[in-house]
Order: sequence, then structure tokens, then C-alpha cells
Amino acid sequence: MNYKVISYVLSKIMGIEAIVLLLPLMVAFYYREGNYLCFLIPILICAAIGVLSLFLKPKDKRIYAKEGFVIVGLAWIFMSLAGALPAYLSGAIPSYIDSFFETVSGFTTTGATILNAIEGLPKGVLFWRSFTHWLGGMGVLVFLIAIVPKSDTATMHLVRAESTGPKIGKLTSKLNVSARILYTIYTVLTVILVLLLLIGGMPFFDSVVTAFGTAGTGGFAVKNASIAAYNSPYITYVISIFMTLFAVNFSMFYFMILGKFGMVFRNEELRTFLLIIFVSVGIISFNIYPLYNNAEMSFRDALFQVTATISTTGFSTADFVKWPYLSQGILLMLMFFGGCAGSTGGGMKIIRIIMLVKSTSKDVRKMLSPRSVLTVKVDKKPVEASVLTGLKVYLMAYLIVLVTSVLLICINNFDMTTNITSVITCLNNVGPGLGDLIGPTGNFSSFSVLSKIVLCFDMLAGRLDIFPVLVLLTPTTWKMK
Amino acid sequence: MNYKVISYVLSKIMGIEAIVLLLPLMVAFYYREGNYLCFLIPILICAAIGVLSLFLKPKDKRIYAKEGFVIVGLAWIFMSLAGALPAYLSGAIPSYIDSFFETVSGFTTTGATILNAIEGLPKGVLFWRSFTHWLGGMGVLVFLIAIVPKSDTATMHLVRAESTGPKIGKLTSKLNVSARILYTIYTVLTVILVLLLLIGGMPFFDSVVTAFGTAGTGGFAVKNASIAAYNSPYITYVISIFMTLFAVNFSMFYFMILGKFGMVFRNEELRTFLLIIFVSVGIISFNIYPLYNNAEMSFRDALFQVTATISTTGFSTADFVKWPYLSQGILLMLMFFGGCAGSTGGGMKIIRIIMLVKSTSKDVRKMLSPRSVLTVKVDKKPVEASVLTGLKVYLMAYLIVLVTSVLLICINNFDMTTNITSVITCLNNVGPGLGDLIGPTGNFSSFSVLSKIVLCFDMLAGRLDIFPVLVLLTPTTWKMK
Repeated sequence: MNYKVISYVLSKIMGIEAIVLLLPLMVAFYYREGNYLCFLIPILICAAIGVLSLFLKPKDKRIYAKEGFVIVGLAWIFMSLAGALPAYLSGAIPSYIDSFFETVSGFTTTGATILNAIEGLPKGVLFWRSFTHWLGGMGVLVFLIAIVPKSDTATMHLVRAESTGPKIGKLTSKLNVSARILYTIYTVLTVILVLLLLIGGMPFFDSVVTAFGTAGTGGFAVKNASIAAYNSPYITYVISIFMTLFAVNFSMFYFMILGKFGMVFRNEELRTFLLIIFVSVGIISFNIYPLYNNAEMSFRDALFQVTATISTTGFSTADFVKWPYLSQGILLMLMFFGGCAGSTGGGMKIIRIIMLVKSTSKDVRKMLSPRSVLTVKVDKKPVEASVLTGLKVYLMAYLIVLVTSVLLICINNFDMTTNITSVITCLNNVGPGLGDLIGPTGNFSSFSVLSKIVLCFDMLAGRLDIFPVLVLLTPTTWKMK
Repeated sequence: MNYKVISYVLSKIMGIEAIVLLLPLMVAFYYREGNYLCFLIPILICAAIGVLSLFLKPKDKRIYAKEGFVIVGLAWIFMSLAGALPAYLSGAIPSYIDSFFETVSGFTTTGATILNAIEGLPKGVLFWRSFTHWLGGMGVLVFLIAIVPKSDTATMHLVRAESTGPKIGKLTSKLNVSARILYTIYTVLTVILVLLLLIGGMPFFDSVVTAFGTAGTGGFAVKNASIAAYNSPYITYVISIFMTLFAVNFSMFYFMILGKFGMVFRNEELRTFLLIIFVSVGIISFNIYPLYNNAEMSFRDALFQVTATISTTGFSTADFVKWPYLSQGILLMLMFFGGCAGSTGGGMKIIRIIMLVKSTSKDVRKMLSPRSVLTVKVDKKPVEASVLTGLKVYLMAYLIVLVTSVLLICINNFDMTTNITSVITCLNNVGPGLGDLIGPTGNFSSFSVLSKIVLCFDMLAGRLDIFPVLVLLTPTTWKMK
């Protein structure tokens, strides 16, 4: 393995973290919060590591698959280790492991929190907490590529390894150009959302951080009651729509800019995604109607929780753990589904669910007529066999991580619903689980240190499509040649 | 599709059910229970359908994969429809759908019951209830093949479709000879168990039906408190050992008879199976020790529940839903694992778990070095690619059935643990689930009719390795040519 290039890229990424940490520092200055050291110390540490990269320049700059996975896996861990410092040093989160959990939850756009009381924390810390969602939503390495002057084949392996998030490299032939186009779309949508929230009467600071949480499909809010705190139908609908938008493949927006509307309307993943939302909202609206006795309110909360769950944002306007179990069952299923591929949403992704159902149906028909030739088609094009194999491999790795994690979480001796759904919600980067403890009104503070480490692993595994983190755990990765 | 051969084989199977129903009738006679009509009516119905087969003899006797799946799927449903009559007609189970559930649970060796009070029911009915376990354990069609004078290639498709249960056709070149060898091993082991239970002071009737429940890894007991009712360490240990034995690939016993002990000791599936039991019993013994303050008792109950769960028998000596959640989590995982392939145990089977872990590990290493050539090996032999594909197909179909069933069960509005584990326990043919309602002291009587139908489907899907029942639901199966 090429350790030199790994150190080089990692130190470069830490240098970038130093730069982005200047933003929350400015927020702290603006609000005259006084706790500047809690940002200055991590900025200096990251900058020092970043400067190292100038001396580390490797002769052999080649990055293969293995190095790609290792860089991506470690980059997310190191960024979280440094990103956890402000909240810890400011005393906002007195335990470092808790602060690490919160930062991993931020970067991975999970939104699971260990905070019992969010209101009253320093604004600089809250800004950074939500800003990690915005950065993580697009992917840490996409950001790196967007700002480097030129891209080469080596960076392609990095982008492949950081496989979730909007797919760069498909829009234009130049990676860094694609990355900038995506970041522009992302920024414009975020700014529109901020404006719409301001129009709805949400305070400026809240509008900005809520937009970060929505854009990254993260889910950290600055109110203990999440979006329910604003008690505004307008805000609820606006956020529902934007959670849906950010869970759509970003290529769709690019196609729309280019005027290729047909490509958007015919897209099978998008149609399936919207159909799932439509059916789920329909069933849940009826199912929860007796709790509200008001059609608009039950529709609104159903729409909000369905879009918050399938986009894996995890905001809440209702305590859905009190809903009938059919509604909870649907939400649990949507946690696994997640958003579209190439969006900031997590979960398994709708395209995988489509291929899962189609290839199983094909296999059953194949069993009936063993000699028939059948292909799985998506968007009327046959899916390559290697893609289906990749899907199956992903599914098996996913299940192994799920089962192992649930067993380790069981040691806490919480109830079984909490044990199982805490892993599901973290592995799919949603945020809240089912059960009172980790539902919309609960949090993860009462979990043991071991459990928090396991859940951090799950959040990273979910965000990075399992493999980079499994690669880090594989002994052969670290064998010297 | 060859409808004639399907009708022919199905009516033949019903004829056989008429014959096996004579046994509980004799039991009812012996105990002078008077309710002979409840057996005579189904015997006459089955016999009438069986006689039809003499007139149905099809010219084209060929059975292909499709016919094989349809015959197997329908055979299990029809046998359960007829097998549900005695309990219903005798009034022991006043609802026909409940009686059908109980019979499906019997034939599929699940052991999930809708009975609130088992003690006091007519002995003939109880005998039949447990005898369905013994018949279902080996597979309904294996029984057919064991008694027909000669076998041909057509029967091979039937055996393949009824894919779980001891694998015939691997021991000798003649199918019916193999089937008879397996039935001999099965019968001898059952008789030994009856004798050992009698020695332990269990009443004769109880010994026989408990042996049926153990041999088929079913789990119906004749006491409300299951095996805990006998309050005997000796009986607990004897049944633990035999549940383990019946969850071992029956080929192992054949190898031992032939003196090929090396084949047994080196068998990877067997070794993994025993290792999983060893580790699980170890952890659970420690985990539940505080509840007992007695090392032998906690070991004994841990051993019993681990072997009862992994063998998918589902007997109980302890109310394990009161155990710490780590122990419950392990039991839940063991429900998925199940016994060895080619045993009477259900679940996913240990060999599939081995291949799942090995092939995922291979795929991760393959990602690190894309050009390396890696193979998955079991018993030091490379596993064919088609087997691994089959495994992945099975897994995907399994997940689709699991998720859909859980959603439908959620309509009951029981707690989430009950919703999820009722499906898991039925799909893996275990019996009890987690949560008080369906735990060792509970039962499925409070489930809705829709839920009972869904769970019947799951039990059949689990017992027949998913595909035969999916084939029945596939519209193309029924298309006329």
C-alpha cells in the first residue's frame, strides 16, 4: 500500500478542515460569544497537519482502489476527531466521546444526537454542528476535488470509494468541473430554502442551520422539539418539499438546467421514489387520522414524517413513536429505502430497492423456465451483471454489519425495539429511531461508550456504503509488502 | 404447465394422508375418546381424492421445475387444509382458520400455537398435532418417495422443489432407497428418544408426542408450560442433546454407520454449528446467571434455549423474554441461523451463513486487489458460482417476504417487537417469538385472521425455502399455453 500518498491526501484534507472551521469562528465572533479558543485550537491543529502536506509530496502519486478506500475511511474519521473539538473544548458537550458521536452524526448526515438540551448552546458550536451536515451531504472528497485546480485519474479512485452522495464525473468529462456544478446547484437550493424559511418568519440563524440540516438530509435542529417548535404549517410544507428535493439524484437538476425534461420525467428511480412517498403518505394519513380528527393536520404530519424518513433527514413535527404500528412499520421500512442514488440522502437507495425487487422477480421466473433468457432492466436499459453482483455483495455486507451491531447494542439491555432501531437509524443515516428512548423526543445520551462507538461505526458504514469501513477492519489491508 | 400430472400427484398425496390419519384414529380408539367422526370424515375425504388418482393417470408423466414447485407448494397447503379438520370437527379448536394455522405450524415444524390451554384436549387430536411435526420434518414428498416402489427422474424435480429437510439422492443412486435409509435413521433416533424420556419418568403418551416434536424440530408440547412442566434436569438435557442431533445433516449419521468418521469430524458446517452453540451457551449462561444464582441451572436453561432456538424447535424451559436483552438478541440471531442443511431444522441453515460470511469477506478482499483470483471454499472445496448466486437470490427473496410480512402484521397494532419477531419466528419455523404476547408463555390466538394467513404463508415459505410459495403467487405460473 502507498502509505505516502495516503498521508499526503489526509493532511491536505485536514488543512481544508482548518479553513472551513473559520466559518463557525466568525459566527462566534459575530455573536460575541467569547469562546474563540474552542475553534482556534482545532484550527491550529488542522492547519499544522495541513502544512505537513507541503513536505509530504509523494513521488508516486498513484491511488488504487485499496488506497482510495483507506483514504476515504480515515478522512471521515480524522475529520470527525478534529471536528469534535469545538463542542468539547467549549464545554457544550463535556464528554469527548459524546462530541465525537455528535460530529460523526453530523458529517454522516445522520442527525442522531446525544444532547438533552440543545437550546442555549453557543451559536458558533450550533452553527458548526449543522454545517457538518452541509459538508457531509455532498461528500468530503467532492469538496476537496471542487477546490483543487486540476483533477487526474487518481482522484477518480477517491470519488469511487466515497461512493454515496451526488455522483460527480457523470455530468462532464472533467471531475473538478462536475464537482463545481454540483456544489453550485447545492448552494443555490440551500439559499432558496433559507429565503423561504425567512419568509415563513423563522429567525435568521435558525433558517440558515435548518437549511444546512435539510440540504445535507442530516436532521440536526436548534430546537429541542425539532421542527415542531416553529408550529408553522408553512414551514412544515416548505421543509417537506426541500427534504424531498435533496433526496433526488442531483443529475436531475442538471438535466433540468439543460432543458432535458424528458430525462427527468422518464427516470424510473425518481418515479418510484415519488410513488413510494405518495402511497406511504396516503396510508399514514388515514392511519393517524383518529389521533388528529383533522384531515389537513394528519396529511401534513404524514407528509413531513414520510419525507423526513425516506430522505433520511430525521427532522420531526410529531412524536411518531405514539402513532399506530402500521405507520411506524412503514417509517421503519422507509428508513431502509432511503433517497435516490446521487442525492445527499442515505439509506440503501431507491435504485437498489428497484433492482432488488426486479432481480428477485427475474430469478423466480428463471426458476420456472430455466432455459429462458431474462434480463433486469432499469430505465429500459439492461442492468449489467456486475452491477447486480455488486448489489448482492452490498446487501450481504449490510446484513452482517446490522446483525453484529444489534448484538453489541443489546449489551445495554434497553428494550428490543430500541436495540434494533438504534442500529437501523444510524446505519441508514436517519437520526431518530422507534421507542421512547431514541424517538423524536429522545436522544442517544444514555447509551454506553461501547454502543456509541458501534453506532459511530454504523453511521460511517452507512454513509460510505459499508466497504471503506470494512476495508479498514480487514487485516490484509495493513500488510506491508 | 402439465395440470394433469399435478392433479395426479396431489391426489396421490391426499390418499397417503388418509392412511396416516388412521394412526390418530387408533389413538382415539385406544383412549376410548368417542370422537371418531372427526378423524373418519377427513379420512374419507382424503381417501376419495386419493382414489381419483387411479382414474387420473396422465399419459405425459414429465415433471419439470415449474410443475415441481407447484406440486410441492400445493401439496403442503392441501395437506394442511385436510389436516386441520380433526381439531376443528372435534371442537378442540372451534375456528377453522385457527385449526389451519395450527396444522400449517405442525407440518412446517414451526410449533407456533393458537391454543391457550393445551392440557385437557383429546389425546387423538394432540397425537395428530404432534405427528404432523414428525411427518413434516422429513418432508411430505420424501415420505411419498419412500413408500412408492420405484423412482424416476420426474420425482427428482419434486425432491428438488421440496428443498429443505434431509437431502435424499445423495446417499445412494436410487432415490427411494435413500429415502428409506433416511426414514430408518429418523425412526431409530425417535425411538431411542422415546425410550430415554420414559426412563426419565415422562408418561408414555407425552414421551411419544414430545419425541415427534423434537425429531421434526417442531416444538408442539402437550403441556401449557412446554418442557418446563416436567421440571426434570435429566429430561431437559436429553431433549437438548436430541434437538441438536436432529438439526445435524442426516448424511452425518449415514457416514457414521458406514464408519466414515473422518467425514463427520472434518465437516465444516457441523463444526461451525457446534461452535455457535458452544459460544452462545457460554455467553448466555453468564448473562442470565444473576437470575438464577446457580451455575448448573443457568447453564442448563441456556443450553436448552440455545439448542431449542438454533434447531428451530422452539420448546422452552424458561421464560426467555424476561432474560437480559443480550441473551434475547443472541436467540433472535440463532432463529435466523437455524440448523444444518439436510436436517429437519429450519431457518436459513448454517451452511448459508458460512457462505454468506466467506463470500462477503472474499468480495471485500477482491475490492482491495481487483485483479486477484479468489474463491470461496467450504470443506476445502471451491463453491460453485451458481451456488453463491442461488444463495444471494434466496437472501433477497427472504428479505422481501420478511419486510412485506412485517408491514402486514403491523396492522394488528401490537408492539413492534411482537410485529417483527412473530414474522421472524414463523419464517424460520421456530415457534415462540420475543415479547410477552408470543413468548414461551404466550400464543398467537389474538392475531387477526389476515395476520394468521400471512404467518401461515411465512411458515410455508420458510419450510420450502421461499421459492415454491413465491411461484404460486407469480401470475406467469398459471398462464395457459
